[in-house]
Amino acid sequence: MAGDNSKITIKLPEPSLRRLPWYLAYVKLLKDRGVEYVSSTQISKDINVDASQIAKDLSFINISGKTRVGYEVESLVSVLEDFLGFTDVHKAVIFGVGSLGAALLQDSGLAQYGMNVIAGFDIKEELAGTFINGIPVYHVSEFEERQKELNAHIGILTVPVERAQETAESMIAGGVKAIWNFTPFRIRVPKHIVVQNTSIYAHLAVMFNRLNNLKK
Amino acid sequence: MAGDNSKITIKLPEPSLRRLPWYLAYVKLLKDRGVEYVSSTQISKDINVDASQIAKDLSFINISGKTRVGYEVESLVSVLEDFLGFTDVHKAVIFGVGSLGAALLQDSGLAQYGMNVIAGFDIKEELAGTFINGIPVYHVSEFEERQKELNAHIGILTVPVERAQETAESMIAGGVKAIWNFTPFRIRVPKHIVVQNTSIYAHLAVMFNRLNNLKK
Repeated sequence: MAGDNSKITIKLPEPSLRRLPWYLAYVKLLKDRGVEYVSSTQISKDINVDASQIAKDLSFINISGKTRVGYEVESLVSVLEDFLGFTDVHKAVIFGVGSLGAALLQDSGLAQYGMNVIAGFDIKEELAGTFINGIPVYHVSEFEERQKELNAHIGILTVPVERAQETAESMIAGGVKAIWNFTPFRIRVPKHIVVQNTSIYAHLAVMFNRLNNLKK
Repeated sequence: MAGDNSKITIKLPEPSLRRLPWYLAYVKLLKDRGVEYVSSTQISKDINVDASQIAKDLSFINISGKTRVGYEVESLVSVLEDFLGFTDVHKAVIFGVGSLGAALLQDSGLAQYGMNVIAGFDIKEELAGTFINGIPVYHVSEFEERQKELNAHIGILTVPVERAQETAESMIAGGVKAIWNFTPFRIRVPKHIVVQNTSIYAHLAVMFNRLNNLKK
């Protein structure tokens, strides 16, 4: 992975970390509109997070607001982007080029956030040798060999549940340091491997449950 | 929305609710392999969640394990699916047929989990009248009129950040009760509206941060 490791040095609490991208999305909007300064009170009003919480979260990163005018919007955008690692280039490969995997290959948003997906791998012979959005798709059996050149540190897991564990293991064997797991399966990995679970179906369950509770 | 409201009656803690889909994914695998019974100890070993936590989470739903053999796999699958609302049919519309929105229209996984996406809406005139995966795409201006027939209760938000708030408001005006927000923007909604935030870029930031901390 490229980038300056010193950028992200503070182990801030995960809930704070998770809120920083919300602030970034909001202040980018302000920047586009030509707004120069913003206070935590204004951010609070617009995105529904407590103002003191916002000030506390932002105190973890290298920026401070000015009395009366607040934070300088342009600096806040660039400091947040740097801090969150969105200005680095993180090389990633996708395992499982089904509907979700193919969608992620096509998603230009990932590149904007510093994720450079450089190859896809699938078990289906007919996908090998194809390109999606200019990104090559190889047969899974080629991973070990290709990885020598690709040197991807992030593996995106979008295979069917029944292949999640074995696929995670082969990614790790190939040198992947972090796995972005989109399957609802809880993969088991060695302690030094980072796993980020993003199971959209779990979110679906939470939403259905709240919706049904509403009707009571 | 169709379905039996009585199915989801217990307000179980959200962390428990979020774990239930993991158990479901795992026991579905066992079912496919012809396994008849499973203990919380076995589940624990395979998916890395504490066995007593699993037993506690499952105590919220209408199933109990038998001494020595554990839970009956087939019952556990169907009770979990029912409880999570995956066997109901939830009608949804997607706002924003860009790369992520189009991907969700193509994702057959959603239907398996009870989410029936019946239409897409976009601001781009050239998309109006097209079909993705057999699902019609209309111009946003048609939403109010179309919604009279569609009667969708869930709105999936995949528009650019700068249109997130206004789009959420027009969904709500059209009768949407729950918004699945894939944008990193924190939309403001009335109290009676359910919002589920699934910002994959926020997860990306958490993963980058952990990866960088590893190197220290």
